[in-house]
Amino acid sequence: MSDFWKTGLSRVAPNEILVRGYPIEQLTRQRLFGDVVYLLLKGELPAGSEGRLIEAILIACCEHSLASPSVDAVRFVASAGVPLQTAVAAGVSAIGEVHGGAMEACAELFYAAVKAGQTPGEVFDRLAAQKRRLPGYGHPVHTDDPRTKVLLALASELKLAGPHTMFALRLEEAAQGKIGRRLPMNVDGAIGALLCDLGIDARLGKAFFIIARSAGYAAHAHEQATQERPFKAADHTEITYTGPARRDVPRAPESKL
Amino acid sequence: MSDFWKTGLSRVAPNEILVRGYPIEQLTRQRLFGDVVYLLLKGELPAGSEGRLIEAILIACCEHSLASPSVDAVRFVASAGVPLQTAVAAGVSAIGEVHGGAMEACAELFYAAVKAGQTPGEVFDRLAAQKRRLPGYGHPVHTDDPRTKVLLALASELKLAGPHTMFALRLEEAAQGKIGRRLPMNVDGAIGALLCDLGIDARLGKAFFIIARSAGYAAHAHEQATQERPFKAADHTEITYTGPARRDVPRAPESKL
Amino acid sequence: MSDFWKTGLSRVAPNEILVRGYPIEQLTRQRLFGDVVYLLLKGELPAGSEGRLIEAILIACCEHSLASPSVDAVRFVASAGVPLQTAVAAGVSAIGEVHGGAMEACAELFYAAVKAGQTPGEVFDRLAAQKRRLPGYGHPVHTDDPRTKVLLALASELKLAGPHTMFALRLEEAAQGKIGRRLPMNVDGAIGALLCDLGIDARLGKAFFIIARSAGYAAHAHEQATQERPFKAADHTEITYTGPARRDVPRAPESKL
Amino acid sequence: MSDFWKTGLSRVAPNEILVRGYPIEQLTRQRLFGDVVYLLLKGELPAGSEGRLIEAILIACCEHSLASPSVDAVRFVASAGVPLQTAVAAGVSAIGEVHGGAMEACAELFYAAVKAGQTPGEVFDRLAAQKRRLPGYGHPVHTDDPRTKVLLALASELKLAGPHTMFALRLEEAAQGKIGRRLPMNVDGAIGALLCDLGIDARLGKAFFIIARSAGYAAHAHEQATQERPFKAADHTEITYTGPARRDVPRAPESKL
Repeated sequence: MSDFWKTGLSRVAPNEILVRGYPIEQLTRQRLFGDVVYLLLKGELPAGSEGRLIEAILIACCEHSLASPSVDAVRFVASAGVPLQTAVAAGVSAIGEVHGGAMEACAELFYAAVKAGQTPGEVFDRLAAQKRRLPGYGHPVHTDDPRTKVLLALASELKLAGPHTMFALRLEEAAQGKIGRRLPMNVDGAIGALLCDLGIDARLGKAFFIIARSAGYAAHAHEQATQERPFKAADHTEITYTGPARRDVPRAPESKL
Repeated sequence: MSDFWKTGLSRVAPNEILVRGYPIEQLTRQRLFGDVVYLLLKGELPAGSEGRLIEAILIACCEHSLASPSVDAVRFVASAGVPLQTAVAAGVSAIGEVHGGAMEACAELFYAAVKAGQTPGEVFDRLAAQKRRLPGYGHPVHTDDPRTKVLLALASELKLAGPHTMFALRLEEAAQGKIGRRLPMNVDGAIGALLCDLGIDARLGKAFFIIARSAGYAAHAHEQATQERPFKAADHTEITYTGPARRDVPRAPESKL
Repeated sequence: MSDFWKTGLSRVAPNEILVRGYPIEQLTRQRLFGDVVYLLLKGELPAGSEGRLIEAILIACCEHSLASPSVDAVRFVASAGVPLQTAVAAGVSAIGEVHGGAMEACAELFYAAVKAGQTPGEVFDRLAAQKRRLPGYGHPVHTDDPRTKVLLALASELKLAGPHTMFALRLEEAAQGKIGRRLPMNVDGAIGALLCDLGIDARLGKAFFIIARSAGYAAHAHEQATQERPFKAADHTEITYTGPARRDVPRAPESKL
Repeated sequence: MSDFWKTGLSRVAPNEILVRGYPIEQLTRQRLFGDVVYLLLKGELPAGSEGRLIEAILIACCEHSLASPSVDAVRFVASAGVPLQTAVAAGVSAIGEVHGGAMEACAELFYAAVKAGQTPGEVFDRLAAQKRRLPGYGHPVHTDDPRTKVLLALASELKLAGPHTMFALRLEEAAQGKIGRRLPMNVDGAIGALLCDLGIDARLGKAFFIIARSAGYAAHAHEQATQERPFKAADHTEITYTGPARRDVPRAPESKL
């Protein structure tokens, strides 16, 4: 069965757990959780302050109140009388293309553009011609996202902002020039760019949102279960029914019931 | 809030539940579950034996033993000491592009081809040119899938097999002619074609697999929880570790821990 | 590995799928889906009309509009840009102790009471003394649940209502006598009693709700994804924040960041 | 709707996100992720090094290879062609009473025992009399769990090990005295005790495992999707079928199909 059960992530033997080769007790003793997230997802421990930036990314996107489809899902599920992990899992499953998914889309975009040496204007025009939305810019609530600002400032200070972050900033400018109004980089855009400069695989873009939000979801599930009444649901008097009016079931043509 | 909570699926009022207008007690008394699935997913009750065919589809794909990623997921989850519904949900979540997903892909293909009046040979060649796999044909275990045969025979007998099913059969022949060996229609292909002839939205292709398998998953979760030992997991001696050999954690360059 | 991968549910071999011994093509051709659900969950095909009653149970609890925590969870998850099965899985996971869970509790109660020859009055008094809620009676919306009535009538007609259903009806009367007002049997109570008379393991009580609702959840996920705007979430202006007022982060006593 | 959408966890307004009152950009800039997890779950920022201990707890339980039901579930689900978050959610949902659940059970036990001033011997005897298993002691693979040792040493050094950790250590000794062999505290036991000394609600015991493992699950889902073949499932030739031999479907007594 050696081919069936195979992993390069960790090794378990009696009284020994190695994560990508490193004894887990050394990691526990000597490192930040952000370092270990980087190790798990990239394969090596960071050489510098990358783990610190990972922690900042996790903090920046850990919570956004009930103004979030996944958090709302957590609250309804948690109200049904299920264990904590079930409600958190529902939240994690709701991180989708339009909610937490832009990090992946941004990372793909920034990687490809920088690799191909494209200008921000070219990228903007190509997406516009394809009638595709520019991922990572604009937000329904925030015009000047505090999370974007702090992450970019910290990355710059830690000397971890590189060509992809620069590109993302120039794309913001280019977009403003093209459409004649600000289209500010949101937290997904900032994280997408930073993940590129950290060399993280774009397909792992949602992983950071998942890890961060799992902490927020746990807090919401606990609050729902301990502070609110069970069975959270829309009241039937609040629901607008748009279907057909009451009608009788016709006899099935060949009914034998 | 009338715009926030809105649905055409059902209406709940004191002592009244209407599903797309029909009183639930009339549906319960007079109809097959297959009729109601059709009603839920298509919006109207079937005019003929469509509900009977839906039931056959549900039976045909309700179970495929442990030779299935989703069923295996159910067994591991159920072994961890969680409620029945949690294990079933894990199985449902594992119905993906390469496992139960072909019904949707087939339905899209058949709808488009029949609408455009394409020949099976043209469709085969276009996919081949795009290096895309032909969805709904071939199976790792079954060369002559008993589920395909019974569904096509029943649909024919019920006079519910139409142009999409015909197209799917001719595509099987065309593929055989092109590649010089049989590439038999599998159960996903058959169901995909039948859903087209039933006029079901291709995006609902997985729904039938989901409903059918939820019964199988419940049975597996129950068997695991009541007949097997808890904590099903690969034994550490069976796992092939492909990562780096044991190594010490280097001191973080700027560590302050 | 023969002990690791083991099941009595079904056998897969090339061109053969047996469900508890029965060829799947025979089941597909000759039986109701309700018969097969019974086979999967109980181990044998029904001898009489049990499959018909199972179908009625599935229809009766397939849908309850947005007045349901699990359906609401489905809608939020489906709005986030995820595949159909992900939204359905979130709904299934939300079937909990206070939402669909009463069937299991009722079945346990009715099995134990009938086996021990207890009177409804004794059972009511014992629960009251333990300050436990009587599961399966009362409903926030329905005082005379149409689903309860049709299921009990159909079971009676099919000669499938037995001692547990009789007990459940007498418990309703006893409760009314004790508390001086009607505490009507709800659909969970009715299904719980019928499952006992069908000889289904009480631990499978939620399975019927899971299977039935998976059809409703699929319809809701599809409606949300195709008829509504993405990113369904509470508007930030609608949220009541009950936490501390804005405050600055104190410097960590031993901060090294 | 102010009562329907209500939370004390965070407040969102244009360009402002407060987590329990603290501006998210200050948390991002000045704090460890462990501090923020503590804030989310306990309601206040830690006064000392508690965030550092939280990070150590997260690192210690982030990964245990494929020797884990939840990780195995992640691998099967990830092989089915689903998004990253779906596979992670399946893993989170599999954290159950016998897998990651002992932290909660331990925390309840330690809180109650210390509050009531019970001796370890009394607690051991009571559980034994109730034929209940002692949660948090013993492990199928590790006789001397490296994670337990490093966490207890670090907590001691940080001056965060208090009466509950002392009690847990004495319970280990008492158990050994009673049964005549070592029953070593495992990582769940150590974390359960430390959570008590941190004042975390026992019902949040699984939250730390959830957050930690979500990082490991993401890495496993990514490895599965990018390094392994799709459709991971038991081979049909490896499955032991324990059900009835092949048999024909009897005609339904009242069949009308």
